[in-house]
Amino acid sequence: MPEGRTLLERACRGERNGRVPVWIMRQAGRYLPEYRKLRESVDFKTATKTPELAARITLQPLERFPLDAAILFSDIMTPLEGMGVRLDFDPGPVLEKPVRSATELSLLEPEEGTPYVLETIRRVREELPSDRALIGFAGAPFTLFCYLVQGEGSKDFMEARSFLREEPEAASRMLELLGAAMTRYLTAQAKAGADVVMLFDSWAGLLGSEVYRRFVLPITRRAVCDVREATGVPVIYFANGAGSMLGDVREVGADVVGIDWTVPLSAAVERLGPSAVVQGNLDPAALFAPEAELEHGIRAVLNEGAAARAHVFNLGHGIHHATEPDRVAFLVDRVHEISAQG
Amino acid sequence: MPEGRTLLERACRGERNGRVPVWIMRQAGRYLPEYRKLRESVDFKTATKTPELAARITLQPLERFPLDAAILFSDIMTPLEGMGVRLDFDPGPVLEKPVRSATELSLLEPEEGTPYVLETIRRVREELPSDRALIGFAGAPFTLFCYLVQGEGSKDFMEARSFLREEPEAASRMLELLGAAMTRYLTAQAKAGADVVMLFDSWAGLLGSEVYRRFVLPITRRAVCDVREATGVPVIYFANGAGSMLGDVREVGADVVGIDWTVPLSAAVERLGPSAVVQGNLDPAALFAPEAELEHGIRAVLNEGAAARAHVFNLGHGIHHATEPDRVAFLVDRVHEISAQG
Repeated sequence: MPEGRTLLERACRGERNGRVPVWIMRQAGRYLPEYRKLRESVDFKTATKTPELAARITLQPLERFPLDAAILFSDIMTPLEGMGVRLDFDPGPVLEKPVRSATELSLLEPEEGTPYVLETIRRVREELPSDRALIGFAGAPFTLFCYLVQGEGSKDFMEARSFLREEPEAASRMLELLGAAMTRYLTAQAKAGADVVMLFDSWAGLLGSEVYRRFVLPITRRAVCDVREATGVPVIYFANGAGSMLGDVREVGADVVGIDWTVPLSAAVERLGPSAVVQGNLDPAALFAPEAELEHGIRAVLNEGAAARAHVFNLGHGIHHATEPDRVAFLVDRVHEISAQG
Repeated sequence: MPEGRTLLERACRGERNGRVPVWIMRQAGRYLPEYRKLRESVDFKTATKTPELAARITLQPLERFPLDAAILFSDIMTPLEGMGVRLDFDPGPVLEKPVRSATELSLLEPEEGTPYVLETIRRVREELPSDRALIGFAGAPFTLFCYLVQGEGSKDFMEARSFLREEPEAASRMLELLGAAMTRYLTAQAKAGADVVMLFDSWAGLLGSEVYRRFVLPITRRAVCDVREATGVPVIYFANGAGSMLGDVREVGADVVGIDWTVPLSAAVERLGPSAVVQGNLDPAALFAPEAELEHGIRAVLNEGAAARAHVFNLGHGIHHATEPDRVAFLVDRVHEISAQG
């Protein structure tokens, strides 16, 4: 595969090519009427496990907006389900029972449990124009650990955080197994056709620096490094809520660092260094502002992003389901136009 | 009232007196069997509105542990209920209907709606030894705004955050009214006997710096300043999750800045300046660690806190309901002993 075929891939490798690429976290989802319509007749889990449907949903936002990338329609829990963890979505993941030992985890099927995800990727890559990137993704080890130990979503994942303290060795072994499993999963995604892969560490911000460095950083760094070595595709790492820990996040060594909406990109670059490539970070709430103010927000993010070696425009968190699709059209157009004027 | 009668008050005013004072957010609450027992026969709202019960609950942790302060047993929504907002707890606040205009808000009874809170304070202050401080508190204007607009707890308070964008003028007027109401409320608490007051900005971390500075900072700064001017008591401001925004939080001008568990206190002091007094910030999950590791964590927080002009020891968030009371006893003792050795 030729390197840097798409604008997104080139930005991920640190090139600035005039226009800033743009895609939107959760761009395939509930704010789109065509997604809601499709979901009337099929539940979320079935949709993620049926390549025809998952591919169609992945492509829906690209049919509406000139986005620079598609992102696989799936869930961070999907590969764990493929490994034998029994769970449902309501709407967040709810496990039949929490998993709180490495033994339990290692008894699970370690890989190849999600052929439908790879088939979805092959289908999307076939239909997607060659100048648009396809992003694969996985949950970062700590975030998956949170759901496994807690057994469901939580505001503070206190069960998971206390498990780290009460049983540090078991926790470390679980994190290692998860890191290895996600490395295999992302490698398989890249081989199936994902041009870029992303690790979502949605709950990293619940940890202080010391705990992050001890339990999370080494495992996550190894996963990023192994995926890149095995596949050559760029890796984006998004540690949500970790704005005060960007010095640690830097050491993960991802090609691109996702930044949430609470940290100005210029401040992020100060912490990450001038050779950093950043992704983000318009506040999803800004899509509810009047047009002039939304444009002001977009310009501010682009200006801030200019401090980085390269910039991938995105929201600083998933798009909210009540967002008007028209605002997304406006956003994508403005990012393209303003950044092309450079 | 003589200034600096208690160790906590002296620390709040920037004095170091050998021992570091310690109290614990949510110290009067569910982790205590005597609290759970009392709550068997009375619901949360009734408990907050009955001075005899609220005073007893406020004093419960002081009867077990040599804490340096009691904090009023109440809820940040209590004064809003006193103003006529109809709500219940399940277990978080659920409003009968959201409040989304300044007109609605200003029609509500503006003050003196919570005589039972002031009566609770008078009772506690009477029973509390004179060398222990009583902390009064209120929700910060933005955090109350979040609950009013959203109508209930939320992971992201997106309704509230989009309301700021969609109706910036109405939002500003609501924030102003809330700031003025909480100023009156805290002033009344101080006059009834609270030695220190605290503003909880539990959701400030959901905002980026620009939005915080535009909508929240001026209102919050004025409330802090007005309360101090009217009463002379020190004001603690705790902006949860705002670790990457401490430069802005500094400008609020509180006597003491609460720091959540994700930011090392030394890093906080770097942002707040060496004359800052900080409160915090042991990870509540550390109370689930083996004793040796808990002690290591306590020492680390005390060492970090030495960077500040003065330090009030606390957790970096409310204590978790599953915590063993024995661990709290250990914590309080260790803080006293280690900090006395200086």
